[in-house]
Amino acid sequence: MAAPKELLDWIDASAPAFITRLSEAVAIASISGDPAYRPRVLEMSNWLNKQLKAVGVITKQVDMGKHIMDGQTLELPPVVLGRIGEDPKKKTVLIYGHFDVQPASQSDGWATDPFVLTEEKDGRLWHHETQTPLPVNLVFCFEGMEENGSEGLDELVEKEKDGWFKGVDCMCISDNYWLNTRTPALTYGLRGLVYFKITVSGPGRDLHSGVFGRMVHEPMTDLISLMSRLVAPDGTILIPGVDDMVSAADNEEREIYARLDYSVADVDSSAGATSSITLSEDKVQTLMGRMRMPALSLHGIEGAFSGPGAKTVIPAKVAGKFSIRLVPPQTPDKVEPLVKTYLESEFAKLGTKSKLEIELLHSGKPWLADWKHWNFAAAIKATETIYKRTPDLTREGGSIPVTLTFAEQLGVNVLLLPMGRGDDGAHSTNEKLDKSNYIEGTKLLGSYLYEVGAIAV
Amino acid sequence: MAAPKELLDWIDASAPAFITRLSEAVAIASISGDPAYRPRVLEMSNWLNKQLKAVGVITKQVDMGKHIMDGQTLELPPVVLGRIGEDPKKKTVLIYGHFDVQPASQSDGWATDPFVLTEEKDGRLWHHETQTPLPVNLVFCFEGMEENGSEGLDELVEKEKDGWFKGVDCMCISDNYWLNTRTPALTYGLRGLVYFKITVSGPGRDLHSGVFGRMVHEPMTDLISLMSRLVAPDGTILIPGVDDMVSAADNEEREIYARLDYSVADVDSSAGATSSITLSEDKVQTLMGRMRMPALSLHGIEGAFSGPGAKTVIPAKVAGKFSIRLVPPQTPDKVEPLVKTYLESEFAKLGTKSKLEIELLHSGKPWLADWKHWNFAAAIKATETIYKRTPDLTREGGSIPVTLTFAEQLGVNVLLLPMGRGDDGAHSTNEKLDKSNYIEGTKLLGSYLYEVGAIAV
Repeated sequence: MAAPKELLDWIDASAPAFITRLSEAVAIASISGDPAYRPRVLEMSNWLNKQLKAVGVITKQVDMGKHIMDGQTLELPPVVLGRIGEDPKKKTVLIYGHFDVQPASQSDGWATDPFVLTEEKDGRLWHHETQTPLPVNLVFCFEGMEENGSEGLDELVEKEKDGWFKGVDCMCISDNYWLNTRTPALTYGLRGLVYFKITVSGPGRDLHSGVFGRMVHEPMTDLISLMSRLVAPDGTILIPGVDDMVSAADNEEREIYARLDYSVADVDSSAGATSSITLSEDKVQTLMGRMRMPALSLHGIEGAFSGPGAKTVIPAKVAGKFSIRLVPPQTPDKVEPLVKTYLESEFAKLGTKSKLEIELLHSGKPWLADWKHWNFAAAIKATETIYKRTPDLTREGGSIPVTLTFAEQLGVNVLLLPMGRGDDGAHSTNEKLDKSNYIEGTKLLGSYLYEVGAIAV
Repeated sequence: MAAPKELLDWIDASAPAFITRLSEAVAIASISGDPAYRPRVLEMSNWLNKQLKAVGVITKQVDMGKHIMDGQTLELPPVVLGRIGEDPKKKTVLIYGHFDVQPASQSDGWATDPFVLTEEKDGRLWHHETQTPLPVNLVFCFEGMEENGSEGLDELVEKEKDGWFKGVDCMCISDNYWLNTRTPALTYGLRGLVYFKITVSGPGRDLHSGVFGRMVHEPMTDLISLMSRLVAPDGTILIPGVDDMVSAADNEEREIYARLDYSVADVDSSAGATSSITLSEDKVQTLMGRMRMPALSLHGIEGAFSGPGAKTVIPAKVAGKFSIRLVPPQTPDKVEPLVKTYLESEFAKLGTKSKLEIELLHSGKPWLADWKHWNFAAAIKATETIYKRTPDLTREGGSIPVTLTFAEQLGVNVLLLPMGRGDDGAHSTNEKLDKSNYIEGTKLLGSYLYEVGAIAV
């Protein structure tokens, strides 16, 4: 059953109010990865809880306890659980989202304050305003630690499997992107992640390179040498056993990638590059790099000189950050020991007196779903109604580790229904969301619920 | 002639006033390498000019024009020139110093605000207060861009060679350190410097490693690979021709290092290390590493993720900073093309589509003086009077490029007369100056002028 026209018209009319609400959320800098911003993540949990209650959702804020980050004991942001509708004759759809964000500041190159959006007015849930019955029962789970390892969520899902999440028939997560700027997509796979911090130390404090240069072992020299042994410029992961774990694609699988609405030029365009930056000129190879191959990225170094200008320092303690995106059959448990063994063995080869410490900051398994399930069928139908196009069926390069947790614990089909375009710039400077994607995407989500409600299983 | 006892007593009595004046200077964060702090460097030029005038020095603030740093056009801090005494029967000693500092902040690990010193009261020049004649004529040259390449100073020295600096007989610079914490030192050599910034770029903005990982060339991967090819963990410079330029020490030269009051443990102690961090266990080898060998240090990376926590970013544009300390016969002119050719050739081997830009941020030649000159003899005698010890005769690992400029342009002997100890932590967190070194060092500088005045040449 398609969504009522009244709903779609109401969404169009409410666009300014939706944008106001979004701007309120954007203004709360809920950066879970930085201890200084933890109070804002807690504030975000409260804000979201209030929003849900205002439209009639029954909620529960779950105390997640405390954890230690960068040597500080911090309160974990409460997970917000919600329910609306208890009709046993209707399907129950679980909606997951996260309300924490990545670090961002204008000094990173944002053209405007990343935590200010500019639009105004107020919004209310349609069914709540008009007393129209919902086509399904809804269950919500919103967490505030997704960008930093979803601490405690696995345990919560396991605990509430037969409690808050009892009776869930399928799940929908809207937390990824179209492949391009043209074609809506549904996503049935995600890469996993292991994120490492490797700390090299020696002197008791930063040293002057004139006074100490060529007298002492320099932690930066050791760290840079170690980091250079992780990944080759062509993307090959140099840690023995990591790339090898993944079998090559057969012709049938390559056909799937060949069919997608995508060109290598889309990569350059969505990356804002003025000339080609892709590892391959081949469309299928490029798509496989993102969707079915592991990837190792070097993110940066903490503790070294990172400002503008010239500083002649030998940093005393430097920490390299890197992560590996994982694909089946890789798991953090299988990959972590390979990484540690290799790093320790390569570090020993350096013959340095510096000390090495290896930490796994967070991790998540990769995930693959059955895209022939009725949950996907409903989403395909809704997409065709709203966008008048058949969606691309994609695997994503990013990680939402809890996707797998929900899929495994609840035993239900999980659908990723992206709202944004491939050029939104996720986790990057000047990240954006097109207004049309926000509004049409809202219609799509509403229509999807009607299609789920109409499916006879 | 030894300094009058009245002078030494007066210095002791004036210690609190000297400390007050020092604290005023420390409070002015005159960081020449950061565009945001440029007004403070100009303020420092004015403060120093005022101090000199207050004690009867004739001064001139020299407009050095403008320059471009990090894309901004900035006013260069005026050089402060000074003269006191015009007696043709006396020697004329040129004193050089710089009033700019390195970047520093508590977030780097300083235990207290680096720009606050805690002592109080006021001070005046002894000769000015008591109308005692000076034993020599003094000429001063104080600049505010030493930490950032001494922009424009070479030209000024050349221009004023037969002007402000006419008649200078010798020169003294107090801008380095004892070898250890026990024995005063006089320094007759300095290493030179070439400081490079190598920028690797590709995407138009920072990317999400999940979305783009293994699809695109990552500038960090390329930069880290390039930086790892510059220096080995044992300190060997991997750029062909750089280490080779320097001939090995013969036995006679090794004897000089063997005589110095120094142990390998002094290195660890002054670096605040809790276990050994030296490249060699041998004292002579360690001293040669600092005094007569080039050194390449990797300082850091601008543009990558450098904060705490975990951020899954592919930085769009990253700039590695490194420098090489040079020793005779190396010069920036000889070394720069070796570095550029090597970097370009190694970068080409990466097979990446990223772009490389190489900039020489600043440079200075190394310097060696004749330590058998009467200028050194005067300083040795003064040291023996004040500290009751024969000073170590050292070469320094750091760079004060203008030393060579003055030596070459004015054709006079230059002496480096350090005030601080080897554990002061120059350019590092919690940098300090022992009060006894400040006050005894002041007596030493005064005594040195009397000894210079007494020498018949």
